[in-house]
Amino acid sequence: MKRQIRILGIDDAPFTFHDKYSAVIGVVMRGGEYIECVLRGQVMIDGTEATLICQEMIQHSRHRKQLKVIMIDGCCLGGFNVVDIDDLSTATNLPVITITRDKPDHQKIKQALQNNFEDWKERWLVLRKGKLHRIPTRHNPIYIKCSGVSLEEAKEIINISTIRGVIPEPIRVAHLIASGITRGESYGKA
Amino acid sequence: MKRQIRILGIDDAPFTFHDKYSAVIGVVMRGGEYIECVLRGQVMIDGTEATLICQEMIQHSRHRKQLKVIMIDGCCLGGFNVVDIDDLSTATNLPVITITRDKPDHQKIKQALQNNFEDWKERWLVLRKGKLHRIPTRHNPIYIKCSGVSLEEAKEIINISTIRGVIPEPIRVAHLIASGITRGESYGKA
Repeated sequence: MKRQIRILGIDDAPFTFHDKYSAVIGVVMRGGEYIECVLRGQVMIDGTEATLICQEMIQHSRHRKQLKVIMIDGCCLGGFNVVDIDDLSTATNLPVITITRDKPDHQKIKQALQNNFEDWKERWLVLRKGKLHRIPTRHNPIYIKCSGVSLEEAKEIINISTIRGVIPEPIRVAHLIASGITRGESYGKA
Repeated sequence: MKRQIRILGIDDAPFTFHDKYSAVIGVVMRGGEYIECVLRGQVMIDGTEATLICQEMIQHSRHRKQLKVIMIDGCCLGGFNVVDIDDLSTATNLPVITITRDKPDHQKIKQALQNNFEDWKERWLVLRKGKLHRIPTRHNPIYIKCSGVSLEEAKEIINISTIRGVIPEPIRVAHLIASGITRGESYGKA
């Protein structure tokens, strides 16, 4: 695999209970090294259009033809606005990999969906798409899902694009931008 | 000089005639390689507080103690909101380097100031601070000013932090973020 593979990393911005929307930041990088482009969209908090927003962000970008893979910080953008990784992969004809540091607590998530959404069953079904893999690293493990790509290839892409720590640069940088523009100074580790 | 020298790159966001403020993005990088932090402030378009905004952005940052140099895309943020590079360097106790691709047309700038600002003389004096140096590169030359640092050291810092093309990464990335978050997709080359 090319070390300079074009990756789009996506993360959402922090929000408060007063906000209706959350910014979504996309970062196009060559491997884990060189930033080519920054994209910005927004999703409704707890809305249902996150998949479409990601799809449009890609389709409207000048870089769409160079992109080889999409990475997302988890499966949701803007609260419980769930990204359908299979639909996104099909619509864009690109592999999708979601990555988190913490193992999702499915019981807790299901409970939260049931307590807060009439359409909790639909959200839950989308959220459960894709097998969750625990990937050991030199540091803590990460948890990933993939669609449109084998686990082995996904691991290779993650390896190529991770410089320090465990989070691939496209997601790490998208997180720094999303949190920095919202709070004035970026924080945390994606 | 350490290749991992901490540099803050600053650029402003594009704006329209309807806007009162322009976002200012700061990016803290280790040399030209690794992004550590994204900062966001704002300046009044054609205001007079750009120097103070840069100063506060730095003083409020968790990274202030690691910073070794400030780079700015030109001498103005938000139209003709001129940064006083000497004052900024003194207030932060850090070297300041401004960088542009195009040679400033001083005659045209002076005329624009005279036509638009009662305080044009003050702005003009601040704008003229620092000697403008033409720096040849493998590609087109760049034009720089520096304060609190020798020309030789400034060139070395620029060399360390430039990966592709002629613009150091901290400024290039600040430009991508500032234009991307404002327009939806970043454009141009800082």
